[in-house]
Amino acid sequence: MEDAQGHAAAAEFPFLRELARQFRDHGGPAAWDGLPDAEAVAPLLGRRDRRRGGRDAEPDPEVYWRIELFYRAVAVAIEARTGVACTPMLRMHHEAAGRVVVVAGRLVVVSKNLRDAHRFGFDDLSELVDAGERAVASGVALVERFPELARYPG
Amino acid sequence: MEDAQGHAAAAEFPFLRELARQFRDHGGPAAWDGLPDAEAVAPLLGRRDRRRGGRDAEPDPEVYWRIELFYRAVAVAIEARTGVACTPMLRMHHEAAGRVVVVAGRLVVVSKNLRDAHRFGFDDLSELVDAGERAVASGVALVERFPELARYPG
Repeated sequence: MEDAQGHAAAAEFPFLRELARQFRDHGGPAAWDGLPDAEAVAPLLGRRDRRRGGRDAEPDPEVYWRIELFYRAVAVAIEARTGVACTPMLRMHHEAAGRVVVVAGRLVVVSKNLRDAHRFGFDDLSELVDAGERAVASGVALVERFPELARYPG
Repeated sequence: MEDAQGHAAAAEFPFLRELARQFRDHGGPAAWDGLPDAEAVAPLLGRRDRRRGGRDAEPDPEVYWRIELFYRAVAVAIEARTGVACTPMLRMHHEAAGRVVVVAGRLVVVSKNLRDAHRFGFDDLSELVDAGERAVASGVALVERFPELARYPG
């Protein structure tokens, strides 16, 4: 359903549905096919330490992949609600610290500094959904506040 | 030398000097130490195809490193001229195509779509310097046009 500006309503594109789709499409060898949304996003639940080996070991490369899928879902949801193309971009400074942004035109609609990337996750589904919907809502608000920058060509 | 706003003058931070510093600091095992600026940036000169093997082979990983150093120098130069912290971020969609941005606060001060990343380079030094200074100047102009976004916290 679209409103008068051609934007999809938030209710039509809940964050959880999009995130579950990301895991089904990109989360691995069809492991999440057929699972309900709440189970497809299970890799993001729990804040366990995802390093291989001891405390100083590098994070499992899948750590970055989970972060990437979360912010891809944020980007897709903002795009669905605003009609503006959004790109997630992740940069790690070292193995556990970095920054993730979602970019629309010349606007950074979401920005998050990552610390302890190897612990990226949420205590439970409700915390995950809250964090995702909050990121999406603040991104949508920024697009609406600076529409000309969000639609800036190139 | 700084002006009344505490910003460094462009003449004090020419792009070429910063790019040469990037290659000296990060370009490899001290290979560029002691070389004049114009020679330290030699890896970016020439548009030869930097793939290993045939036409469909993947680019040499150093391709991405050269792109990264170029946009790091752009970011450092914009930061030096505006006083605003700038972060370069590179995202490849597949091995030869992607996007590079320089982010300041909530503003994307430089944005470039990359095609043929394996050919990233410049015909000669003057083309390289022109491209770098142009990217820096347009980034500085955008920071000055949207100072509150460039200084946006987080």
